[in-house]
Amino acid sequence: MGHGSGGAMSHELVAQRLLRRLSNEALEPLDDAAVLPLSGRVAFTTDSYVVSPLIFPGGDIGRLAVCGTVNDLAMMGAQAASLSLALIIEEGLPFTTLDQVVSSIQAACKEAGVHIVTGDTKVVNRGKADGLFITTSGVGVVPDTVRVSGHNCRPGDRVLISGTLAEHGVAVMSAREGLSFSTTTRSDCAPLNGLVRAMVDECASALRCMRDPTRGGVASTLNELASQSGVSVTIDEDALPVRPEVRSACEMLGLDPLYVANEGKLIAVVEPEAADRLLTTMRSHPLGREAAVIGEVAHGTPGRVTMRTHLGPSRLIAMLAGELLPRIC
Amino acid sequence: MGHGSGGAMSHELVAQRLLRRLSNEALEPLDDAAVLPLSGRVAFTTDSYVVSPLIFPGGDIGRLAVCGTVNDLAMMGAQAASLSLALIIEEGLPFTTLDQVVSSIQAACKEAGVHIVTGDTKVVNRGKADGLFITTSGVGVVPDTVRVSGHNCRPGDRVLISGTLAEHGVAVMSAREGLSFSTTTRSDCAPLNGLVRAMVDECASALRCMRDPTRGGVASTLNELASQSGVSVTIDEDALPVRPEVRSACEMLGLDPLYVANEGKLIAVVEPEAADRLLTTMRSHPLGREAAVIGEVAHGTPGRVTMRTHLGPSRLIAMLAGELLPRIC
Repeated sequence: MGHGSGGAMSHELVAQRLLRRLSNEALEPLDDAAVLPLSGRVAFTTDSYVVSPLIFPGGDIGRLAVCGTVNDLAMMGAQAASLSLALIIEEGLPFTTLDQVVSSIQAACKEAGVHIVTGDTKVVNRGKADGLFITTSGVGVVPDTVRVSGHNCRPGDRVLISGTLAEHGVAVMSAREGLSFSTTTRSDCAPLNGLVRAMVDECASALRCMRDPTRGGVASTLNELASQSGVSVTIDEDALPVRPEVRSACEMLGLDPLYVANEGKLIAVVEPEAADRLLTTMRSHPLGREAAVIGEVAHGTPGRVTMRTHLGPSRLIAMLAGELLPRIC
Repeated sequence: MGHGSGGAMSHELVAQRLLRRLSNEALEPLDDAAVLPLSGRVAFTTDSYVVSPLIFPGGDIGRLAVCGTVNDLAMMGAQAASLSLALIIEEGLPFTTLDQVVSSIQAACKEAGVHIVTGDTKVVNRGKADGLFITTSGVGVVPDTVRVSGHNCRPGDRVLISGTLAEHGVAVMSAREGLSFSTTTRSDCAPLNGLVRAMVDECASALRCMRDPTRGGVASTLNELASQSGVSVTIDEDALPVRPEVRSACEMLGLDPLYVANEGKLIAVVEPEAADRLLTTMRSHPLGREAAVIGEVAHGTPGRVTMRTHLGPSRLIAMLAGELLPRIC
């Protein structure tokens, strides 16, 4: 608890465990706020991470927090981002775990080309948190050429996805204590700003909307977009890329991959004329190799999402109603 | 737990409990990030709040979170701020408590003239958090005339405080369950951006550094400044404004008011020539009526803070070593 006091032990924790790995020019002054030169339309986002367990196949809460915030900014078209990092640490969290997570934050920042520029650390008594919660926020400048929003989808637009579904959710579930199945599936957790940069460079004006289908999965994201834009969306079951082992794991767990979280995939709604070009661009990027056109926007009932199934008939893809996978991110 | 799923229940929670009270133009689109027009030197800060209990005399975790982030930005000179709000909710938190906190966030935003422009909500299982944790981040433009930093203090500078010490810490302790004393002390929790605006308007160039002495109190803040600027600081016990009932409460609790958290006070280190003018300006503002010059910066041992005591001799004011008041903010 002394590490959360704001006194000498707090300073030591910050210096020894955090600054040593995360230091950079903007963070270094340790003033009450970082001061950044920014100009234009600045995207600003925040997310808390409460994933359980803290470490899972393909990632950990640190990588998740960095990628999640980088991706939320990237979905608005913003690139070189500055991040904040706020830790809520449960008393007794092993230093080895903290160090591992901070190393992972450092690596993910390097991979994404971003910096942690400001932060905070709190400690709560044993039993009052679950090891570690992380909240990251971020800011980044949106290029003038990019005008994306969930309100922009129009009938005729194509719906693209950057790769295979449901890997993050399945990986976390497989790592969860007490769960009696295991798989080789690793989380897809990855920073998408590089992929987005390639798409923006290829054809910024054709991008109506981008979203990363995290909590609630592709189904919830498409429902949000259909509702916000007042359109319907139709997707094609046969077009959905799902790895066989993920499909098996979902069947065993009684989950529909459409509702399972992704952390390194994006959905792009694009003008129909540019869909092929953007698909090619996505497939040329390491994080978009399995990109696919999965559906289109239509005039139907506003807010309605339907799927043409493998067997022919269409079914309604509703918004997730209750709890599916708790604490997946 | 369904409210944390990312599905329909999450949307309902956000719409019914949060958007209804916090809605504004930037938040309304509910995209992955808010997009704000900003230009210049942008201050960016974050803080997590884990205060226990959630509601205390003079405030609650919501007011604390808004004021804390507004104040961190104000300490860099930034004014009209945009805030993010990330909630980690323990399963079972009563809706009445959540509603009260959100109303308080709404009121504090109005008081400070700021908006919540982006947010996130997570729910964790019962027993895995302590009711509610809040993380706020904020961005705001720093006027060109302001150049403040903890590294700027110089020998001869005066140290000003905007009012009486230790009220937040004492109020929270008095509200804490099981504690056998009570006081009439209320938290001083307040947004300081208006006071800072007045100081900036009066004499921006004379401001070397501003800090709000929260966790660790005035003693820790002065130690940070002395250390960052490589100077010594001397303060005067007789000049420290402390309300009698706060002094009594501190004596009963065995606390030194210098180490107890404030949430509506600032320390300003200013050029000596402008100290009187700035003191007058502060005293003209409702949140600075009891402002005082409490000491000065000197050439002595870098990083050393000393206090001339009421009885004559000086004593060393060290950085807080271990735990004093856990979960005070």
